Amino acid sequence: MARRFENVSLLTDYGLVDEFVGVVKAVIRDIAPHAQTIDLTHNIPPFDVRAGSLALARCVSYIPSGVVVGVVDPGVGGSRKAIAIEVADGEAVFVGPDNGLLAPAVAMAGGAQRAVDLTNEDYHLLSHGVTFAGRDIFAPVAAHLCNGVDLTEFGPLVDADELMPGMVPLPRQEDEGLVGEVLWVDHFGNCQLNIGPDEIADWGAQIQVSFGESQRVATRKTTFGDIATGAVGLVVDSCGMLALALDQRSAASDLGIGPGDQITLSPLADGAPSGATSAVTIRAR
Amino acid sequence: MARRFENVSLLTDYGLVDEFVGVVKAVIRDIAPHAQTIDLTHNIPPFDVRAGSLALARCVSYIPSGVVVGVVDPGVGGSRKAIAIEVADGEAVFVGPDNGLLAPAVAMAGGAQRAVDLTNEDYHLLSHGVTFAGRDIFAPVAAHLCNGVDLTEFGPLVDADELMPGMVPLPRQEDEGLVGEVLWVDHFGNCQLNIGPDEIADWGAQIQVSFGESQRVATRKTTFGDIATGAVGLVVDSCGMLALALDQRSAASDLGIGPGDQITLSPLADGAPSGATSAVTIRAR
Amino acid sequence: MARRFENVSLLTDYGLVDEFVGVVKAVIRDIAPHAQTIDLTHNIPPFDVRAGSLALARCVSYIPSGVVVGVVDPGVGGSRKAIAIEVADGEAVFVGPDNGLLAPAVAMAGGAQRAVDLTNEDYHLLSHGVTFAGRDIFAPVAAHLCNGVDLTEFGPLVDADELMPGMVPLPRQEDEGLVGEVLWVDHFGNCQLNIGPDEIADWGAQIQVSFGESQRVATRKTTFGDIATGAVGLVVDSCGMLALALDQRSAASDLGIGPGDQITLSPLADGAPSGATSAVTIRAR
Repeated sequence: MARRFENVSLLTDYGLVDEFVGVVKAVIRDIAPHAQTIDLTHNIPPFDVRAGSLALARCVSYIPSGVVVGVVDPGVGGSRKAIAIEVADGEAVFVGPDNGLLAPAVAMAGGAQRAVDLTNEDYHLLSHGVTFAGRDIFAPVAAHLCNGVDLTEFGPLVDADELMPGMVPLPRQEDEGLVGEVLWVDHFGNCQLNIGPDEIADWGAQIQVSFGESQRVATRKTTFGDIATGAVGLVVDSCGMLALALDQRSAASDLGIGPGDQITLSPLADGAPSGATSAVTIRAR
Repeated sequence: MARRFENVSLLTDYGLVDEFVGVVKAVIRDIAPHAQTIDLTHNIPPFDVRAGSLALARCVSYIPSGVVVGVVDPGVGGSRKAIAIEVADGEAVFVGPDNGLLAPAVAMAGGAQRAVDLTNEDYHLLSHGVTFAGRDIFAPVAAHLCNGVDLTEFGPLVDADELMPGMVPLPRQEDEGLVGEVLWVDHFGNCQLNIGPDEIADWGAQIQVSFGESQRVATRKTTFGDIATGAVGLVVDSCGMLALALDQRSAASDLGIGPGDQITLSPLADGAPSGATSAVTIRAR
Repeated sequence: MARRFENVSLLTDYGLVDEFVGVVKAVIRDIAPHAQTIDLTHNIPPFDVRAGSLALARCVSYIPSGVVVGVVDPGVGGSRKAIAIEVADGEAVFVGPDNGLLAPAVAMAGGAQRAVDLTNEDYHLLSHGVTFAGRDIFAPVAAHLCNGVDLTEFGPLVDADELMPGMVPLPRQEDEGLVGEVLWVDHFGNCQLNIGPDEIADWGAQIQVSFGESQRVATRKTTFGDIATGAVGLVVDSCGMLALALDQRSAASDLGIGPGDQITLSPLADGAPSGATSAVTIRAR
């Protein structure tokens, strides 16, 4: 027997309206009553593997030792593999579809050490159809992992190099500035960019922000409350990335931007009327 | 003392915006700290007993041994009974209002063996008003059941035949085809019918689907990913029922159908231009 | 070492779409694996300290002994203190921002006995930015409290009189009647007032309700089901306050009222056509 685990952390696009999440947790509880489940989130937009992979990567350094199940799985029941990936000398095992969802989190956890194709049906639930792998494959596998079943019992080892990689967009320097994109809009409307503070460290307190046909001037601030009313702030967010933010309002709504939108940052030219762009923008809300 | 339970599974229409669910779980935790709660769902549409009863029935074969609390209760505080129903030689006890909500799940679990009317106020919370039976009756009863209090302590035995039955619509064969209805639209827009695959086993791969004034041709597929772009699929869903589905899009939105809508399935006539109906439909999204 | 706790109850405005709540619970689980978390709610409207403080106060008499974390924190990272407040001879400790959020609940729990400013960074997470105090300060402090770390380890004692008070609006008697307001609209559309039943005890069964330019006649009822179709009921809700309600419909939508709206109750004048106001109102829904 391998080590036992106490925790199963869950991230899915199942939503919280149907009983999907409840049934997954019921299955885990039935097989591994000692294990605790932690809901990271179940509201990844349906089928959005990229959004799910970014959310899981944001969580990974806070997840306790144990099993991590990720399910955003448009190819459920089809030819994509169901996999389990061991990381960090067995401290954690990631379970989910082989579609890139797990890849960024696995990389942040130090990379795959062993991986298996979850083909051993002895550890699956006998089920109707093939459309609910979360219930029929991932949940029972996670629970049996918690019970100390070794990874290699669940199916044949696969080479980590054969697994689907994740896609994390990188910013690029162009003539007009540093071109990045919105990675994530959170519940409060803050817009995380794929640009870190080091990349604009010597650009001064005010930064030109261009997107679509629009331009705004953003001011670097430490807290949301430091951002003046009507102004756009650029803060280091809780992941260490730059985020466009407003004080107690949604930057995404105000600026009309969302995940995947291209954003260009550039240093403010000398003598430019700093903040003027913000000041003259009168928007209907 | 009766057997103790370790699990309380919960299904309600309380939503997750207010603190209702949190308070129910706090009450259970306070009385029976050893018990674990499992949230099946709390987003049954308000007052929709039928939707709640169907969701609970879909869960029942996955719920671990223990207490199951169901609360969709438009008659709260009125003349409807508050009940507890024991099933499966005491493996599980269902707790909730006597309005049909629990009936399909109880039937799937083998039927009621003992049932009581929860009138013994020693096991209720002293409370304000009569509008929150989940907190004041169902939660404390569930917790005391977990602590090993026997069913008969909670009130007088009632005859299971006197409990409100559930309503599960059955399909019927008519001249134009097999007439059923949409039981459930899930988070992804898949439309579960009250028709199983055996009922159309020899109808071929393509099926005529009629609803309202519309007709579409649906193709039987095993996975969502097998459904061609723009086509309607008919898959065996995770409950073993037929469901209308699109690949990575909402069948409910595309077809304009919802729970309770009548759907007629019929074999495709020979020589009919299969799939044509789908192909010529140009819809604004 | 101080007493250990088994429970951490959580109330936030983080929503359930992002992984914020999941990460908070992961941090608690990592530091204090024995502690159970109870989600009171995470859907307080963003930045709405008043709504959060009222919801927490509604919960407080049902929360089991332990730590209570409240986070509605528009000033996160700024000059507002992060605090912990001990109540009820150490039965519970409230943790959160010093912005009034915790105050009504603390008062209901008997008032602050000891309070500390959470400045000892030994019990914080090393983190990016200052925007996620729930993860970096409140969660680890709550977990260490569960592990038996004494309150005074987390920072210097502060005088409870220096903490930000909460704001709970009181009704006032004016010429036209008893002037109160809507404290809370729940998931079902019931509108809780800041008026208790004792304040109108001798006013008879029918009460004039005035709001904005409108007037309706509400009838006192014990249950929602007792309210006639189309009529407005006035029920004693599960907190012991008066609430405007309709049977299986939203009073908030029907009456067009929401939290903070002023409501005036007055006794129905003799000979007034009781119920007429309701009966003649034909509303588009």
